[in-house]
Amino acid sequence: MTDPTPLTRFSVAPLSRMTRQLASVAGGRAEPDLVITGARILSTYSERMRPDSEVWITGGRIAAVKPAGAYRGGAPRYEAGGGILAPGLVDPHLHIESSMVTACAYAEAALLNGTTTIVCDSHEIGNVLDTDGIAWMLEDARAAPLNIYLTVPSTVPATSPELETAGGDLTAEKIGALFDAWPEAIGLGEKMDFVAVAEGDERAHAIIAAALQRGRPVSGHIYGRGFVGAYAASGVTDTHEAIDRDIADDLLEAGLWIYLRGGPPTTPWHSLPKAIGTIIELGASAKRVCVCTDDRDAQDLLAYGLDWVVREAIRMGIPREQAWSMGSLHPATRYGLDNEIGGFGGGRRADLVLLDDDFIPQTTWYGGRCVVENRTITPLLDAALSRPYRYPAPAYATMHLPLPLPALVPVLPKGRCVVNAIRTTLPGIELTHERYDLTPASDWPTTLRDNDLCFVTVIERHGGAGNVAHGLLRAFGLKHGAVASSVGHDSHNVIVAGLNAEDMRVAIDALSAIQGGVCVVEDGQVTAMVPLPVAGLLSDKRVGIVAEEVRLLKKAWERAGCTIPYMGFNLIPLSVIPEIRITDKGIVLVPAMEIVPLFEPVEA
Amino acid sequence: MTDPTPLTRFSVAPLSRMTRQLASVAGGRAEPDLVITGARILSTYSERMRPDSEVWITGGRIAAVKPAGAYRGGAPRYEAGGGILAPGLVDPHLHIESSMVTACAYAEAALLNGTTTIVCDSHEIGNVLDTDGIAWMLEDARAAPLNIYLTVPSTVPATSPELETAGGDLTAEKIGALFDAWPEAIGLGEKMDFVAVAEGDERAHAIIAAALQRGRPVSGHIYGRGFVGAYAASGVTDTHEAIDRDIADDLLEAGLWIYLRGGPPTTPWHSLPKAIGTIIELGASAKRVCVCTDDRDAQDLLAYGLDWVVREAIRMGIPREQAWSMGSLHPATRYGLDNEIGGFGGGRRADLVLLDDDFIPQTTWYGGRCVVENRTITPLLDAALSRPYRYPAPAYATMHLPLPLPALVPVLPKGRCVVNAIRTTLPGIELTHERYDLTPASDWPTTLRDNDLCFVTVIERHGGAGNVAHGLLRAFGLKHGAVASSVGHDSHNVIVAGLNAEDMRVAIDALSAIQGGVCVVEDGQVTAMVPLPVAGLLSDKRVGIVAEEVRLLKKAWERAGCTIPYMGFNLIPLSVIPEIRITDKGIVLVPAMEIVPLFEPVEA
Repeated sequence: MTDPTPLTRFSVAPLSRMTRQLASVAGGRAEPDLVITGARILSTYSERMRPDSEVWITGGRIAAVKPAGAYRGGAPRYEAGGGILAPGLVDPHLHIESSMVTACAYAEAALLNGTTTIVCDSHEIGNVLDTDGIAWMLEDARAAPLNIYLTVPSTVPATSPELETAGGDLTAEKIGALFDAWPEAIGLGEKMDFVAVAEGDERAHAIIAAALQRGRPVSGHIYGRGFVGAYAASGVTDTHEAIDRDIADDLLEAGLWIYLRGGPPTTPWHSLPKAIGTIIELGASAKRVCVCTDDRDAQDLLAYGLDWVVREAIRMGIPREQAWSMGSLHPATRYGLDNEIGGFGGGRRADLVLLDDDFIPQTTWYGGRCVVENRTITPLLDAALSRPYRYPAPAYATMHLPLPLPALVPVLPKGRCVVNAIRTTLPGIELTHERYDLTPASDWPTTLRDNDLCFVTVIERHGGAGNVAHGLLRAFGLKHGAVASSVGHDSHNVIVAGLNAEDMRVAIDALSAIQGGVCVVEDGQVTAMVPLPVAGLLSDKRVGIVAEEVRLLKKAWERAGCTIPYMGFNLIPLSVIPEIRITDKGIVLVPAMEIVPLFEPVEA
Repeated sequence: MTDPTPLTRFSVAPLSRMTRQLASVAGGRAEPDLVITGARILSTYSERMRPDSEVWITGGRIAAVKPAGAYRGGAPRYEAGGGILAPGLVDPHLHIESSMVTACAYAEAALLNGTTTIVCDSHEIGNVLDTDGIAWMLEDARAAPLNIYLTVPSTVPATSPELETAGGDLTAEKIGALFDAWPEAIGLGEKMDFVAVAEGDERAHAIIAAALQRGRPVSGHIYGRGFVGAYAASGVTDTHEAIDRDIADDLLEAGLWIYLRGGPPTTPWHSLPKAIGTIIELGASAKRVCVCTDDRDAQDLLAYGLDWVVREAIRMGIPREQAWSMGSLHPATRYGLDNEIGGFGGGRRADLVLLDDDFIPQTTWYGGRCVVENRTITPLLDAALSRPYRYPAPAYATMHLPLPLPALVPVLPKGRCVVNAIRTTLPGIELTHERYDLTPASDWPTTLRDNDLCFVTVIERHGGAGNVAHGLLRAFGLKHGAVASSVGHDSHNVIVAGLNAEDMRVAIDALSAIQGGVCVVEDGQVTAMVPLPVAGLLSDKRVGIVAEEVRLLKKAWERAGCTIPYMGFNLIPLSVIPEIRITDKGIVLVPAMEIVPLFEPVEA
């Protein structure tokens, strides 16, 4: 089936204009467009499996669910062969930018995994391009074959201009204006400065107020049981950062919806297995518990979608109908969208997925149109993906590095000194502050080798003062060459690590030439590269291509000897995570939030 | 504690203005106003009981829940003595007018029963006074010491001007304007013309669209499993009319929230015990199931509040924490109010109720202020109730009867004829059409007695054409005199039944003199009367006084011999219930929706 009409969220008319047509079809007075018959229906409302049923669809919405065989007319019919028909998944929290693809490209992976609605928090592009970037990504989202809602980024910059230079500065006023301009802005994004929130910081609370005044809920991001009370009292009503059973339980009781985050099993982001203890060990009701993905690179997005997270919940002991509901109806309800998506109610969008008995998505309908069949995208979807939104020219020109490029490595100290080094440790989220006496050798190569160090440099890229900051990474494992990225969270300045200035220069030049990306350099040659020309964050290619680029990058990254993966490397400038970070302003101690020099004189 | 400030919903500032203060108190940097300590906390979020806890309250909101004894400062402290502290109940569907009291007066009964939020559907006053009446009742609601939200009446008049004369005519445009003017209008009221909706009637769907376009949900009212599909497809997402297990199950699966209606045990409105079978027999999740009261007269309101309905659910086998959640968090969630009420989350309103082990409300806090203590209202609440909203003069002048009054009884037929009589049967909702040959005696008294009949007359009272319709009630049991009411659903014309024109006239005159009410007349004397001067529907007295008037009315009503209670009598003109009704336009057959004469010639 090919179809010349666009395939976007807006291909299905609003329910307010369709009720008469839907009633006619449900009442048997008009013909449906499609009947999917012979299915077991997974009811998210009752958490039961309804045997041998069929769904009548008109105008992209569900007219009615009937016993299989009830329809006897001539409309197209899809035989589900006894498979499980479920509502499309709804991901309540994720960052499209983590996937390094556009919203349009993201849709392909999502639909393959049975996800038909996502709620994204575009704070990465907001950090680079302020409200313009957010608006462009929303245009991208509107052109995508996927329901994409936004939680408006709440914490841009992540800290303050004293600690880092960002390209964005989202004030309460700008955030309010985004809410007023974009109806798909259904909530405030994760309020990451949870310490400031708990302490009553004025700017943070003005931003929260901008959402609450408009009746929009506030998403959270919090660590530490001690902060739960004050954070919840500040109006925050969800979290995806509950890392274990007890804090999940605290947060649930404090009135927050819990989004269990399933990260790929090798990452520290896979907090679901512990946090789910609030249900399976402590007996909490699951009705305010959801699942989410949060961050996925393009490769992992295909392999570990929200469907996989649901299966993880089932593996942990959640009944399968309830687990699927945690990934569909519950998120829909949390955002007030349960009259539109998340179940088989009359009038809901026909965003449906046919599962096998292992809950692996086989076939997906988006707005009543088949976009994935037998785990392969249909020509209809392929056509839609081939005409994606094109970001405007300024989005392709965000590498405003200082010219000429400043020195990429620090001057070798002339004698014994104290160094504030950054020790990388697996899994790469926390970084340890190593402060110790250093007696340099006569040159950098020897000094680095003798002390298990390499250079790490952050260069401001937003056309500001052109700051550069030098640091030293310990135990990073880089054997030769350099690695570099324009995705240095959250301000997304350029971060480069290396053993010599020449390879670091090659890496920076390579990123400059294509306006952003992540690369590996060995012996003066770029050996792997994911180009990210849109805001220095996103590729403009299809997700499969980017996934392959990412796969090759990871291989080169590992070959270069790096002990933490590139995603962990990207977090080295994120000055909200303990214990030590480096931004364009210098080396930052967290949570003291103070900048320290790389080298200090030895105390007498 | 006396307090000069008003006690209304607005006494508590919006959360958007309070987050910093709440965070300060939760974080221990500022003092709470009140600490309720030594309580078990009923968690509606997790459906568990949390032992030995305390609640810190500031500005009428919950700052935090802590272990009992955590607070060591000097703020006022309430010792809960190990009782169960629960969130105030939220009634998702009721008609204030059924209680024959104003919104301000309703609050007293609600708070005594632990109900702190109600969602009312003011379609009675809308039928009498159109949008003016609805607006006045909203002003009344805003002045009440209770959270009162509105579902905008959707079906006024209940049928059409061909079948009855109403004082209101709520078009889609008027309904849209009400939504735009009143933020507390959180949904569309029960769409009672379910057959028209299912059949795609244009006016009905335009009204639904007025709500859906504004993102407001649509409440339902439906009988008959055959209508479920088309009705749900029309955008309706709740019902309180599920009368048994199977239709409740159908409606739940069709995407509707189920409000289990608990009526007083002697009434046919007590559908909860059967409908709850969807959970306790068919295993449906309770997460989209609520409880509601729908209709209560003033006397029953005090005795059978929503707390009683929750206890009924527990008696039927629902775990007690879940049952309370069905009466608090679930309705709050259904209307998108769960960030404001329905649980102990940080920032929620401190609308709380202390229960004994039998779940009987003992003490109620409204916005953090104690309004009921040990089952008695506090001086604070008494003061608030003593300065209620006063309806404007036009609301007190709604008995626009034709003058001079038309004949109240029909002319005695001169010979054998066919009569279309209305047979009353217990419990009084359905009325049976009895069409049979009548051979009149020489006078009415003999004819009535010989045929177990009495007169029933409906007189238009909205200043229209002054219609009068005559009918005959069979098996009504009236022994002498007359009964009359200005609450003749839904147009609320005057209905009077009697054995002679004189007593009927006395009854009408009595109602006219006080601009509405319900009365019993024996031998030319009014023996019981509930005056309802506001719109002919509401008393302007306190609920306890009206409850006593109702009690005396019921006694007189029973003594007069009436087989169906006065509430059933009030439904005799409600021309949407099978199988025969009488309006000011004549005798109406339902569902044929045709008017038939009282007497017809005998067929040859």
